[in-house]
Amino acid sequence: MITTNEILLRAKAVSQNAPLSCEVKNKALKAMADALLRNSDEILKANALDISKAKETVSQVMLDRLRLTTDRIEGMAKGILEVADLPDPVGRVVQSSVHKNGLLIEKTSVPFGVVAIIYESRPNVTSDAAALSFKSGNVCVLRGGKEAYSSAYAIVKALKEGLRECGIDENYINLVEDTTRQSANELMTAVGLVDLLIPRGGKGLIKACTDNAKVPCIETGTGICHIYVDKEADLEKALKIIDNAKTSRPSVCNAAEVCLVHKSIAPLFLPKLYDSFYSSDRENKVELMGDSEVLKYINVTPAGENDFDTEFLDYKMAVKIVNSAEEAVAHIAEHSTHHSESIITEDGSTADYFTARVDSAAVYVNASTRFTDGGEFGLGCEMGISTQKLHARGPMGLNELNTYKYIIKGNGQIR
Amino acid sequence: MITTNEILLRAKAVSQNAPLSCEVKNKALKAMADALLRNSDEILKANALDISKAKETVSQVMLDRLRLTTDRIEGMAKGILEVADLPDPVGRVVQSSVHKNGLLIEKTSVPFGVVAIIYESRPNVTSDAAALSFKSGNVCVLRGGKEAYSSAYAIVKALKEGLRECGIDENYINLVEDTTRQSANELMTAVGLVDLLIPRGGKGLIKACTDNAKVPCIETGTGICHIYVDKEADLEKALKIIDNAKTSRPSVCNAAEVCLVHKSIAPLFLPKLYDSFYSSDRENKVELMGDSEVLKYINVTPAGENDFDTEFLDYKMAVKIVNSAEEAVAHIAEHSTHHSESIITEDGSTADYFTARVDSAAVYVNASTRFTDGGEFGLGCEMGISTQKLHARGPMGLNELNTYKYIIKGNGQIR
Repeated sequence: MITTNEILLRAKAVSQNAPLSCEVKNKALKAMADALLRNSDEILKANALDISKAKETVSQVMLDRLRLTTDRIEGMAKGILEVADLPDPVGRVVQSSVHKNGLLIEKTSVPFGVVAIIYESRPNVTSDAAALSFKSGNVCVLRGGKEAYSSAYAIVKALKEGLRECGIDENYINLVEDTTRQSANELMTAVGLVDLLIPRGGKGLIKACTDNAKVPCIETGTGICHIYVDKEADLEKALKIIDNAKTSRPSVCNAAEVCLVHKSIAPLFLPKLYDSFYSSDRENKVELMGDSEVLKYINVTPAGENDFDTEFLDYKMAVKIVNSAEEAVAHIAEHSTHHSESIITEDGSTADYFTARVDSAAVYVNASTRFTDGGEFGLGCEMGISTQKLHARGPMGLNELNTYKYIIKGNGQIR
Repeated sequence: MITTNEILLRAKAVSQNAPLSCEVKNKALKAMADALLRNSDEILKANALDISKAKETVSQVMLDRLRLTTDRIEGMAKGILEVADLPDPVGRVVQSSVHKNGLLIEKTSVPFGVVAIIYESRPNVTSDAAALSFKSGNVCVLRGGKEAYSSAYAIVKALKEGLRECGIDENYINLVEDTTRQSANELMTAVGLVDLLIPRGGKGLIKACTDNAKVPCIETGTGICHIYVDKEADLEKALKIIDNAKTSRPSVCNAAEVCLVHKSIAPLFLPKLYDSFYSSDRENKVELMGDSEVLKYINVTPAGENDFDTEFLDYKMAVKIVNSAEEAVAHIAEHSTHHSESIITEDGSTADYFTARVDSAAVYVNASTRFTDGGEFGLGCEMGISTQKLHARGPMGLNELNTYKYIIKGNGQIR
């Protein structure tokens, strides 16, 4: 077994190579996609091994996340080709000036260097993260969940095959072999070797990283997203948006978890919301958890102590009545994870108040929180959704996987 | 005494206010500058108290940093007025797109919220940091060194007076009253209350922050800056640049500490460097510390074990002979603090090699490292020089004191 430290030293060495040209990177990405497809059988075999081991210990939902099919592998290959089609983020001159003494000062985008990604059981993250890191000029060190190790190993083996075919150092893409907690801790504390750490996964993983990381780390993901139905809301829009934000894909971080309703429209709106979510037409009914004021209007589950601080990721939604937009904003400030929030209102000045005050990565007016996504925002792809304020906020695309440096050219200038 | 936690809670509350308009902020900055001048006597008295207490325990250099004069207070007021003249960084739409469904997606610059600044004994940092934080829409929590507490208190008192005169909440600017290590630790770990921590000072302070901070932190300052004299260097340029980078202000972070010399020009160049730095015309001779190869050409101090890893901040420079540009780049990768490095060469491809490979905030060709500065780079001001890669690199001006959020306006769009 190669130790995590050895992998990091190798990765650091490769990151000090000359940057690859866009042409070379795109050619390699195509070879990586081809190699994935060519090795489908081997990858499926490895995945079957993971599945058979995991069967007894993990839930059906987890098993489904873990399972690969020919279709899913084709999807992964397609994802890599899409990354190849995106513009190269490296080497953009993002700001340029000429000093009065003639110095040319160019603020230029450059890769971070070594990007470590700690993730959980979805095997497709392996190829997505590798492709995004590679295209953005970074060397990646992938550390997946132990349930998916054989799958990840087979995928990385195919990707490395693609790199080698193009004469590129295979150590641009690395998989950590140790899947115990120790390797995660090693990545979090590898000062000088890891230039950026990105945890992708549940609350526990993110918290472990933000608590323990000594290397630069971007917090991603968890979303307790709110929708506030203002007194000036168009109630039909509100119903449609809440339905979409809650039920179109409840397991993702941009799904809504909490609905705040202005008291003056509550008597009218809450029964409509109830009729919609408890309708016998629905395959999956949404359970509403109401505060004591809500219970005066609709007969739903009384909200428990933690219901306004829980990312349900399920057909569940907490509902609360507020006295004003100010109170909605204050509730969000206290309970949100700063991911995505939306106000439903026809009143422009209340909308402006809400967008100015709510301190989240994405703040919506009259739209579903489900749009917080790299593809939807026009970034073309996404490494994750940052819920922190340093460096990147919201969906992180290729540009967010670069930092910059100043390159200054002179002819003997002194100060 | 107000506890640090109380100050942070107050600061957080103020940061949730509506953002101030540029006009209001500039008017307040002018009132703050006036208030500083008006309260000069009181500030000088407070400073005299600090000086008399510090006299027995600190060095002459420290005492000089700590000392205020009427001139210096005028300089501080002028600095505040210069900040007022800079463009407002808040509310810039840095990217805008329209989704095919009609959603307007605007990536908009916003303040971080509460910015905590831990610094040492220069009293002018108090007013500089307060002005930059205020103009960038942030609420600042200042925590200066204990030697300068009375001066900082008097300065903040005057600044708050300026705010009150304009009807603005004086809690936009806050000074931590506890100057023990405990308050620094409280700021480093105030998750949810401090949105950004900026340490400004020596290596020990920076290291304490990066080791212990649980809140987002920007590493600033320490500079072990290198100048590499290539085999194709114009030696007269090289001498002039090294002289400037080393001696124009040895105590600052962008001063050069190490000179690397290509072996093929060493026999010609080193005697010239020696003649320049040991010239009897110089008021301050520069002590060179050479590796064993250097000692073959010039009779200087043998370099000690740590001389290539020391920020001298003094009339001292370590010198080493390298066999190639590759070796220079490798030495820099191992020993630099990623602040500023320069190559002296007339060979364009070697220059390109150097600027592409050296992983520092500022990489120069044929110019002095002393230009790494917010003013010189056209930012108009500077909160510090970041030596990290996340968020901001190099000089941090007003824009770097902002983060962004996406504001998305729709009319009922669902995904």
